Amino acid sequence: MNKIEHIGIAVKDLEHSNKLFASLFNKPHYKIEEVASEGVKTSFFESGPNKIELLEATKPDSPIAKFIEKKGEGIHHIAFAVDDIFSEIARLKGEGFTVLNETPKKGADNKLVAFLHPKTTNGVLIELCQEIA
Amino acid sequence: MNKIEHIGIAVKDLEHSNKLFASLFNKPHYKIEEVASEGVKTSFFESGPNKIELLEATKPDSPIAKFIEKKGEGIHHIAFAVDDIFSEIARLKGEGFTVLNETPKKGADNKLVAFLHPKTTNGVLIELCQEIA
Repeated sequence: MNKIEHIGIAVKDLEHSNKLFASLFNKPHYKIEEVASEGVKTSFFESGPNKIELLEATKPDSPIAKFIEKKGEGIHHIAFAVDDIFSEIARLKGEGFTVLNETPKKGADNKLVAFLHPKTTNGVLIELCQEIA
Repeated sequence: MNKIEHIGIAVKDLEHSNKLFASLFNKPHYKIEEVASEGVKTSFFESGPNKIELLEATKPDSPIAKFIEKKGEGIHHIAFAVDDIFSEIARLKGEGFTVLNETPKKGADNKLVAFLHPKTTNGVLIELCQEIA
C-alpha cells in the first residue's frame, strides 16, 4: 500500500458540504462524479498527495444512505493506493482478512477497487484501489 | 493544509492491533509513544507520505476510552499538516469552524495540534498539526 489515496466522507447534502470543505481547505473541489452503480454522487478535493472524496447517496438503498441512517455523517472509508490489486487481494486473504470484492470492481476516479470487511480491520472500512491504465 | 499527516484509529488492544495492521501493511509499526496528558498509548505505521496512528486508552476517562464506549473501534480523527497552525486556527475561526484548542497543545510525534469540533465539519474530527521546529 503506497499511500492514502483518499478518505471517503459520507454527507447528506453534497452542495452544502462542498462549500464547507472548500472553506476548510481554502480551495474548491476539483471534480464531481456520479457512480450510478453505487448510487452515489462524489466530489473530490486535493490535499497534497491525497484526496478527500465526499459521498452523497443518490438513492435510498445506496450504501451511503444506509451508513448515514445508522451512524450519521462522517468518515466512511480509507482508500489505499496499490500497484497490483489482484496480488494484494490474494495476500490479504491469505492473512485472514475478509475481502468483500474478490474480483475488483470499477469505482470512481478511474480506479479498480476492492473493500475489506471492517469486522476484520478494527472497525475501519478499507478500500484498495488501483488506477486503471 | 498540505497533506493528510495521519489518520488516528481508536483500538481496544494496541498489541493485537499492531499485529493486525502489520499484516495489512506488510510491515511493522515503527514507533510506540505514550502521551500521558491525553491518556493514550500510540503506535505509528508509515504509508508513503502518510502515517496511521493507532490509539489505545491508558485510563478510563481518556477521550479514546469514551469514543470506543460510544462508537466502538474505528477511525477517530484525520490530521492535516499545516505550515502555521496559529494562522490556520485564526482563518478557520473566521470561516465559522469551532476550534477546540484556540491555543495549540503538544501532541504525539513532536507536533503542535489543535482540533476542530466535528459538529462544524460534517461529523469528522479534524486535527491540525505542525511539526515543532
